[in-house]
Amino acid sequence: MRQFCFGVDVGGTTVKLGLFQPDGTLVEKWEIPTVTQNSGEQILPDIAASIQEKMDHHEIQKEQVLGIGLGVPGPVASDGIIYGAVNLGWGIFNIHKELSDLTGLKVKAGNDATIAALGEMWQGAGRGYKNVILATLGTGVGGGIIIDGQILSGFKGAAGEIGHMHVQDNEEEACSCGNFGCLEQYASATGIVRMANKILRTSDQNSVLRTDEEGISAKLVFDAVKKGDALAIEVAEIFGKYLGTAMANVANIADPEIILFGGGVSKAGEIILQYINKYYVLYAFQEAKNIPLAIATLGNDAGIYGGAKLIIN
Amino acid sequence: MRQFCFGVDVGGTTVKLGLFQPDGTLVEKWEIPTVTQNSGEQILPDIAASIQEKMDHHEIQKEQVLGIGLGVPGPVASDGIIYGAVNLGWGIFNIHKELSDLTGLKVKAGNDATIAALGEMWQGAGRGYKNVILATLGTGVGGGIIIDGQILSGFKGAAGEIGHMHVQDNEEEACSCGNFGCLEQYASATGIVRMANKILRTSDQNSVLRTDEEGISAKLVFDAVKKGDALAIEVAEIFGKYLGTAMANVANIADPEIILFGGGVSKAGEIILQYINKYYVLYAFQEAKNIPLAIATLGNDAGIYGGAKLIIN
Repeated sequence: MRQFCFGVDVGGTTVKLGLFQPDGTLVEKWEIPTVTQNSGEQILPDIAASIQEKMDHHEIQKEQVLGIGLGVPGPVASDGIIYGAVNLGWGIFNIHKELSDLTGLKVKAGNDATIAALGEMWQGAGRGYKNVILATLGTGVGGGIIIDGQILSGFKGAAGEIGHMHVQDNEEEACSCGNFGCLEQYASATGIVRMANKILRTSDQNSVLRTDEEGISAKLVFDAVKKGDALAIEVAEIFGKYLGTAMANVANIADPEIILFGGGVSKAGEIILQYINKYYVLYAFQEAKNIPLAIATLGNDAGIYGGAKLIIN
Repeated sequence: MRQFCFGVDVGGTTVKLGLFQPDGTLVEKWEIPTVTQNSGEQILPDIAASIQEKMDHHEIQKEQVLGIGLGVPGPVASDGIIYGAVNLGWGIFNIHKELSDLTGLKVKAGNDATIAALGEMWQGAGRGYKNVILATLGTGVGGGIIIDGQILSGFKGAAGEIGHMHVQDNEEEACSCGNFGCLEQYASATGIVRMANKILRTSDQNSVLRTDEEGISAKLVFDAVKKGDALAIEVAEIFGKYLGTAMANVANIADPEIILFGGGVSKAGEIILQYINKYYVLYAFQEAKNIPLAIATLGNDAGIYGGAKLIIN
């Protein structure tokens, strides 16, 4: 009997779904819109219906499905309790029970950044390793920590909140979380743009960042770094200093084999690693100084791969 | 059949041993000297002989013993491989196998700071919790992280190296690990004395710390803080700032239920918590701001309790 499982990545605008074989083969991937109205009450029924439709299409019987693994944008405890997911409108409930009741299938869920780390370990840049940290540098900074092949989830499923490590004492703007000086304020795509604009305002220095009519983006900053733009390099140094130091501290705490960087900012490529590594090697514990830092490879599919792996584990 | 287990804490000068019942009752505790000559080759045979002697004395048969759990001052991987323990003269070997061959008993070992955290969770200040972080503030700063009742050990058993988190960019003295600006340089007993001496040298301010003829100790500093000594309070502020910020960052990564402080410095009592908490609440993630910070209660026995729990787990 051929076996299958589903990996699901629930985002604020779309739900990504994948049908997998246990060996990691992605049979098919697709998306459905995330309907967040009415406290997101339609999201799980929509996922259940979409999965049923796909099973019908491929003539897959319930007995052939190992289960559904999901990543959601919020903390999930190991028993399936979700402690709210603001982007989806969700409050507190047991996602394992609710989606299992809707589908008759086994369900396991986790935080999306953590699930992405599991995906990268399974079929991405972390292949062959069992102790992997993934920092996702997007609109915010998310983190996932895998130790001995298992997700580090913590008491309320909030472990791995790398983006809210405190890295700067003199920050005057508040982070989205309410604190001041969080890593996310310097290492996210948003943070990079914020820093660039701040430096542009307080400096007369010539820079290609001044000439762009469409506004600054993290991509533009790192493109300028590649061209040797001094002001962009100043931004990259700050980015590298805080991210490299924070990852050294994470490594000192979690003792990983490899550290990966994903999310929009990582599309700038290997150049970001230079700036991160410069500070990482200064502050990592001796044993951790030489582990590889690398760019994640699964892109937006990391979540569905990680969801599937959650079931296969 | 009554059951027993042994908890062992291998230190640089003495080995502490405890005979336990599985319910946590400490039947007897004792110590033997640590013989570090000849690469510490006598340490395990001495432990084996001491345990056999105690079994004979109490007329305990091998079948009644669940095993021996040990804490050692160095990283231990989950398969028992020790990656060197300089204080003992040990190189790389499998401690599970060696001590098991000597005793015919099941053996499990871990890093001493981590094992102490397990002990505090079982029978100390962390009782009733399953997600516990212990910072041990002694000559150095050690750390143990327990998640869902299990030790976080990492790839090479070096997880929880809280003492070597980077907290200060402008430090000019090197830490024992070779890096600059590690938490240990400000939050250990040694670090507190170092800071106090530094401030005394650069300030004319009156202070009870100047009058002591026996030299400064961490205890003296916190005794002076209790008397309102301004210079001692300055030291306590730096201690609290770096330790509170670092523990907030650990909490953001590991999502614990409670954070404990042990080791010599913690004997100063609740007063250290005020200084730590002041910065902890500023920088912990919202969900982690309100978890308790507390003083560990098992003192020097935390290691033998943790060793025993390692076997019972």
